[in-house]
Amino acid sequence: MPARPAPITITTDFGQSDHYVGQMKGAILRVVPDAAIVDITHAIAPQNVRAASFLVEDLAQAFPAGTVHLVVVDPGVGSARRVIALEAGGQFYVAPDNGVLTLILDKLPAVRIVEIAPDPNPSGAISATFHGRDIMAPAAARLARDQRIEDLGGSLAGEAATLAGLRPRRIAGDRLRIEGMVAWVDHFGNMITNIPADMLAGAEHESWEVRCGSQSVRGLRRYYSEVAEGEMLLLTGSSGRLEIAVNGGSAAKRWRAKAGDEIVVVDNCD
Amino acid sequence: MPARPAPITITTDFGQSDHYVGQMKGAILRVVPDAAIVDITHAIAPQNVRAASFLVEDLAQAFPAGTVHLVVVDPGVGSARRVIALEAGGQFYVAPDNGVLTLILDKLPAVRIVEIAPDPNPSGAISATFHGRDIMAPAAARLARDQRIEDLGGSLAGEAATLAGLRPRRIAGDRLRIEGMVAWVDHFGNMITNIPADMLAGAEHESWEVRCGSQSVRGLRRYYSEVAEGEMLLLTGSSGRLEIAVNGGSAAKRWRAKAGDEIVVVDNCD
Amino acid sequence: MPARPAPITITTDFGQSDHYVGQMKGAILRVVPDAAIVDITHAIAPQNVRAASFLVEDLAQAFPAGTVHLVVVDPGVGSARRVIALEAGGQFYVAPDNGVLTLILDKLPAVRIVEIAPDPNPSGAISATFHGRDIMAPAAARLARDQRIEDLGGSLAGEAATLAGLRPRRIAGDRLRIEGMVAWVDHFGNMITNIPADMLAGAEHESWEVRCGSQSVRGLRRYYSEVAEGEMLLLTGSSGRLEIAVNGGSAAKRWRAKAGDEIVVVDNCD
Repeated sequence: MPARPAPITITTDFGQSDHYVGQMKGAILRVVPDAAIVDITHAIAPQNVRAASFLVEDLAQAFPAGTVHLVVVDPGVGSARRVIALEAGGQFYVAPDNGVLTLILDKLPAVRIVEIAPDPNPSGAISATFHGRDIMAPAAARLARDQRIEDLGGSLAGEAATLAGLRPRRIAGDRLRIEGMVAWVDHFGNMITNIPADMLAGAEHESWEVRCGSQSVRGLRRYYSEVAEGEMLLLTGSSGRLEIAVNGGSAAKRWRAKAGDEIVVVDNCD
Repeated sequence: MPARPAPITITTDFGQSDHYVGQMKGAILRVVPDAAIVDITHAIAPQNVRAASFLVEDLAQAFPAGTVHLVVVDPGVGSARRVIALEAGGQFYVAPDNGVLTLILDKLPAVRIVEIAPDPNPSGAISATFHGRDIMAPAAARLARDQRIEDLGGSLAGEAATLAGLRPRRIAGDRLRIEGMVAWVDHFGNMITNIPADMLAGAEHESWEVRCGSQSVRGLRRYYSEVAEGEMLLLTGSSGRLEIAVNGGSAAKRWRAKAGDEIVVVDNCD
Repeated sequence: MPARPAPITITTDFGQSDHYVGQMKGAILRVVPDAAIVDITHAIAPQNVRAASFLVEDLAQAFPAGTVHLVVVDPGVGSARRVIALEAGGQFYVAPDNGVLTLILDKLPAVRIVEIAPDPNPSGAISATFHGRDIMAPAAARLARDQRIEDLGGSLAGEAATLAGLRPRRIAGDRLRIEGMVAWVDHFGNMITNIPADMLAGAEHESWEVRCGSQSVRGLRRYYSEVAEGEMLLLTGSSGRLEIAVNGGSAAKRWRAKAGDEIVVVDNCD
């Protein structure tokens, strides 16, 4: 009996009201009937490649080796932008070459990146507006089954596209200063930053202050209910990044903050 | 080892906040423990059988042979309306007999239509208000496993119910004129019409105009980014139908259009 | 070949815009690569343990024996609250020990309740804020595969936490009087009460009246379309509980009712 195919995750900006995600799953099942498909989210803001890049960075660790992550946030569909697959950290990623894999490439240098060649014998016509279904889903299915990225196409000519400004910066100086951003506001209103908690390791954490515009909070805690209901706190979130939260409430609402807002961490020990 | 069961897709108007879809999946897994279940959408407007009929028409092509499409938009649940299953184009459909399969029957003449007889030995009570869980889901599971529609019940007495007015009409005359409708507005605001692109084949496409109320657009393109950001365009959408879109924006919002609105294609070569 | 793992259902208050549910599924697949995972809902109101307890009560019947129900509504995550698993009615439940399993324990006395011991060799760090992913999901996966609750930890010291006031009360007196509540308002606006229909068995049903604040309805029907469109009706809902509905409309909107509102059933045969 052949080995079971690896899981395939799907992350898109398609929402959940249409049949597009379902059609992608059909295209996967046509290639690999026993595929294990996991929806990550379809609620990326339309065409927001930056937001998607943060989510994708967080995915790998929770999934088994060999997992294929299919990411379809694709404003340039049909144009000259390429479709790529890459292998990094023992897992695979399939996406348009628009920078959505920037943070993966930054963290886990790719073993191999290929440009996906369209199937020479597609089972149906290839739509100019839905490469997620017609090119990426079948490629992800083949990867899940065969785990052979080299079968999908030739090595990428040139570099993969990347986005600038996604990483926090440590500013040189006498005192700690880190400039980052709100990467994601979750369903509970927690503000997930792009600042890895270990960037703050060694600093005297009672003396930091985290600022967003004119607002600030200090005091790193371990879990929400360590502070009174309605109080603000700082946490190392479940993906290892600094998170700003309110116990039983929405930090983003309280601070009127949104993804993309600047976050600064300063040493404020005076 | 018996063959793997075929996939089962589920399309409903149940939304995603309740446990109803989950209960249907439980009912499927009770019959076929290794069923591969794919959600298509649960965001059909409540009891909008017409909208569902358009989505269902688009599903089959993406899925493998033998797939079972379970469609539960069922305002008449519990009343005398029948529950049917049909085989068409190498796939199966299970639905209330309320016209939701009109377009499938129109496109792919059914090999066989049966009226599903309730299970004589149901594993639980059959609710009068949830035939999706108690009658249709188990029938879909049996079809996925056995691929034998004749086991579900006797041939339908009479015709299956159909809905009128779902197809576009080509108006006879000197000049091209097609009257159709907006079948679906997707998450991006693209207006998917009910007009197959091949209905326009052979026409000089630079001379068409597509009208919706007092608004119009012309110029068929291949992909969104072929026009400038914010510009309107016509496309052959991913399901082969004429689509009205805005690159990076919402066509439906710009035209204040919604599903059901009339769309007219005219030759306007003067 | 080992037997196929039992299904795992997931019920949370996580919403569907984040990657949290996907990460839980990854954690399950790391333990049991061929797990069959069914989303029930992720739309429980944030941290509303009471609402979740009603949904969970309704799940078991639709699922096969051995199913594992994973319920993550967990305002106390990271604090001293325990994580438990229990076996009842031939199925398993994994949840924080915050009362979310009150109604299950009330209906199906547990064969065994254990306190889940954290994995001594976790595959990754255990986050203080996401035990759903790091403790509960792996435990559910092991249960689905091995069906051995005793492997997860020692018997619970003391009682499981329970919530008060979830059950309707029959008031002693000459006339029927039952005091209950709206347990759930569904996507269609149906008001699902916490009153089992069989609590009313034997009563002359034409004489009941169901009241919510100053509004009332009477007349038990079998299905929605038994009354005219727009009319109100009472039903035995698909989970066996009294339900207040409007044919083709929203009962909750008409009565401005919401989950938690008091419902009274009285005999009003004068």
